[in-house]
Amino acid sequence: MKEFRKKAVLMFRDGNTDETEDRVVSEQPITIYLNEEELVTLLCTPVNLDCLALGFLRAEGYITTGTDVKDLQVDLQRNEVSVSLEIGPEGVSAEETYERCRTIAAGPGGGTAFFNARDSLPPLPASDNFRIGSSRILALMQQMQERALVFKQTGGVHSASLCDRERILFFCEDIGRHNAIDKIVGESILRGVDIKDKVLLTSGRLSAEMMLKVARLEVPLVVSRSAPTTLGIEIAERASITMIGFGRGNRFNVYTCPRRVIFDSC
Amino acid sequence: MKEFRKKAVLMFRDGNTDETEDRVVSEQPITIYLNEEELVTLLCTPVNLDCLALGFLRAEGYITTGTDVKDLQVDLQRNEVSVSLEIGPEGVSAEETYERCRTIAAGPGGGTAFFNARDSLPPLPASDNFRIGSSRILALMQQMQERALVFKQTGGVHSASLCDRERILFFCEDIGRHNAIDKIVGESILRGVDIKDKVLLTSGRLSAEMMLKVARLEVPLVVSRSAPTTLGIEIAERASITMIGFGRGNRFNVYTCPRRVIFDSC
Repeated sequence: MKEFRKKAVLMFRDGNTDETEDRVVSEQPITIYLNEEELVTLLCTPVNLDCLALGFLRAEGYITTGTDVKDLQVDLQRNEVSVSLEIGPEGVSAEETYERCRTIAAGPGGGTAFFNARDSLPPLPASDNFRIGSSRILALMQQMQERALVFKQTGGVHSASLCDRERILFFCEDIGRHNAIDKIVGESILRGVDIKDKVLLTSGRLSAEMMLKVARLEVPLVVSRSAPTTLGIEIAERASITMIGFGRGNRFNVYTCPRRVIFDSC
Repeated sequence: MKEFRKKAVLMFRDGNTDETEDRVVSEQPITIYLNEEELVTLLCTPVNLDCLALGFLRAEGYITTGTDVKDLQVDLQRNEVSVSLEIGPEGVSAEETYERCRTIAAGPGGGTAFFNARDSLPPLPASDNFRIGSSRILALMQQMQERALVFKQTGGVHSASLCDRERILFFCEDIGRHNAIDKIVGESILRGVDIKDKVLLTSGRLSAEMMLKVARLEVPLVVSRSAPTTLGIEIAERASITMIGFGRGNRFNVYTCPRRVIFDSC
């Protein structure tokens, strides 16, 4: 499997040492080129790189649908993904498209933009009529955990899933919680699945950057196995996203917009 | 406590809902200004911001010791830390100092630099004679876990500690695993403690970026509660860092340079 490699390890347990092998999750820098210019280098688990690139471009606002993409090439030898964007009918360049699409900027050096952007979040996500039962939320989280085979082997990855009200549509594991989500977003673009009336599951914490991503993607409901942060909650409130944390076993916590959850018996 | 705030939550457990309060870890953007220019905005838990700024500047190669810093001001109203650097006797500017100190670049857009830099890692960390017993490693990890009060309250933070062979010297929790380490590095600068013959403990995974940070800081031994990645191991090997993962209970895994561990009985 490309997702992990065997590495020599000296295991110490209960006073005894054992020279053996351990399965360690793969981490690889992948550089995304956009219209032949270097855009970003992501440290990731090197599978589903077409999905990673598409999802990253969508989450960052460079594209809105798969039709924005003219060409995508994955070069596993050079650890590169090259994407060419369509020039729109009005002859809009990739850079202009980016400026038009991108409403929220976050990340290193983006402090000021980050805060201006919070005020420009959309008032409501696309699917405000979305509803899902509590028992279904718990079942989906359970299913994601069962599919987390790389995590079971290595203990070193995050999971993400896109679900409809019934089942997991796309599932992915990656060393980065943002990468994992970008990959399932990319897969939804490849397969032409709308994510605006879906549920996003993640093993990672619901921090500000994560909730800004969810808001940009206009996903109405996100469930995490992990904790939220204060700023994550604030962004979920402003974007009217239903934000659920500590989803595990027979429990979860709803931090914002509980109206989308139907509390049925388990 | 500034580390967390109470937030309204709808708890769902075993089929029942309960409107109550949850303690949620604080996340705040803090902008670091260097010589009056905006350098970076970090999303962090807003405590020990002087340590965070100093540790960030040290880890990124802008400073090497506290004497490089002329002035440091924390403005909690504006969420800013302003740092002025000393101009050296030769009249070297902050930018030139940075160019001289920085040997390794990582992060967005730094793909090429990242890989060139791996080849320029120092052959050995400063303290190659550093040794520590296996029972002491387990005891220090246990002590860190006992001190992780914000984690116990919120479930949403990482811990980091700097230790000598006997005990934890500095301990910190932050929403970011990099921030937590930067804060203890900053505290060691404030208190004039050399980190080159110390042990670094972290709750976070030992990824490439984490190991590059450890290599830059010339710490000989790092212990994590969590998993390594393949690229993290590769960097630890090249920099001759002793890299220990899954340090919990009565066990740990040594991935590189086991010569610094004395395997004693527990």
